[in-house]
Amino acid sequence: MKELEIPKSHPRYRSLIIREKVVDGFRRGIVVPEGLIAHGRGEAFDYILGEKSWDFAIEAEKATVAWLLTASKPVISVNGNYAALAAREIGELARLTGAIVEVNLFYRTEDRVARIVDFLKQNGVDSVLDADCEKERISGLESPRGIVCRDGIWSADFVLLAMEDGDRTEAIKRMGKIVSAIDLNPFSRTAQTADITIVDEALRATNNMIKMAKTLGKMSKEELENIKKNYDNVEALKASFRVIFSRLNEASRKGLI
Amino acid sequence: MKELEIPKSHPRYRSLIIREKVVDGFRRGIVVPEGLIAHGRGEAFDYILGEKSWDFAIEAEKATVAWLLTASKPVISVNGNYAALAAREIGELARLTGAIVEVNLFYRTEDRVARIVDFLKQNGVDSVLDADCEKERISGLESPRGIVCRDGIWSADFVLLAMEDGDRTEAIKRMGKIVSAIDLNPFSRTAQTADITIVDEALRATNNMIKMAKTLGKMSKEELENIKKNYDNVEALKASFRVIFSRLNEASRKGLI
Repeated sequence: MKELEIPKSHPRYRSLIIREKVVDGFRRGIVVPEGLIAHGRGEAFDYILGEKSWDFAIEAEKATVAWLLTASKPVISVNGNYAALAAREIGELARLTGAIVEVNLFYRTEDRVARIVDFLKQNGVDSVLDADCEKERISGLESPRGIVCRDGIWSADFVLLAMEDGDRTEAIKRMGKIVSAIDLNPFSRTAQTADITIVDEALRATNNMIKMAKTLGKMSKEELENIKKNYDNVEALKASFRVIFSRLNEASRKGLI
Repeated sequence: MKELEIPKSHPRYRSLIIREKVVDGFRRGIVVPEGLIAHGRGEAFDYILGEKSWDFAIEAEKATVAWLLTASKPVISVNGNYAALAAREIGELARLTGAIVEVNLFYRTEDRVARIVDFLKQNGVDSVLDADCEKERISGLESPRGIVCRDGIWSADFVLLAMEDGDRTEAIKRMGKIVSAIDLNPFSRTAQTADITIVDEALRATNNMIKMAKTLGKMSKEELENIKKNYDNVEALKASFRVIFSRLNEASRKGLI
């Protein structure tokens, strides 16, 4: 499948493997060309952030896991890029937290929904709300962008999404859901709109949340409620901008970073 | 062609339309996959800059138009991304200033040159130096990256280029040309090497220059020479970094921007 094996010794091995996952998804018809562009944008922010999970991301991931574990109906909304990057990991996170997985696309075609569902199932995600679910429409979004599953996002109280369009994030918020968004760009409307913004790369973030779910899954409801209550998203966003700022500041003094 | 029309009500309508142009170019075989990722990287900088033409960009665009109007042989060098974004506008700018349009590619294949020439012609660019031009080779660049037209870049005194590779920008500079470069990333080697750096989105920049060409076209040679003389590219680069810096500083204080 891959044209080129990337040597593990390559300093940017992980980032290149992640890019290969997206390109592979593109070849499978899971990722649209717009998704490649979006990935390039994310890569630029990840470079500036130093390609690591910062404390503000860890805190946001922890709060997200606490919500996944305590919500009445938590849903993980999966688009082409998120599936390509972390199919197996999404399944594991869903199993550990009891969340429902729903395929939900900005550039929606029923064919692409089916391809993504197949890909998720191949990667061990047993239960996925798919093109056959009973449909509802989110108000304020033109069809087919507004289509969701009645037993998924429509009736969820908490939605985790990744690399999502700002319009859709806002519309889901307007429906009264609590939203956690994985987005490397803290300027994006999705990042600015979400209740919890995870400024981190999606695969890294999901792997972190899998580890956390194993620990937090043993905590009492009260402890989890405390984690939720103590999380401050404006502080997390500020911290993400501060890191971008100080990394650029440092780079502007040193030149060679 | 498009799977989905983007509603005009979308707050980031313009940015998404621009992205669609690049994707459309990709589907036409004009833009290479690397061009999609490069576009995403540019989007990241455009987010940080607030997706607008700042004063430093306007000044650089004005100086570029003054050069286009006064140079003995001005050339607009067009690659896949620039053609996909602004074919019609490139033609209008060339007509208003008398510049020559040359298709010149980093990932050069004669087939892709022909596709881009066709696309430009479909969009009203009547005269384009194409794959049939008499060829020369820029020294210091491996073939086919170094191929240019004798009646175009080879003998130009001024070259406007967009989203160009740093190696090629440097090689064109070494040939003694004055170079103006459109590049959203002021850190890039192209941005750092050019005589005039336009830190602006390419379609926005070209539309600005079309308007300016109509006004500056009526000015005396002396007035145009004054615009050229008074332009300071190091100041423009500094100003672009200052905007990035202050936007990030503000964001890191506020969190919500």
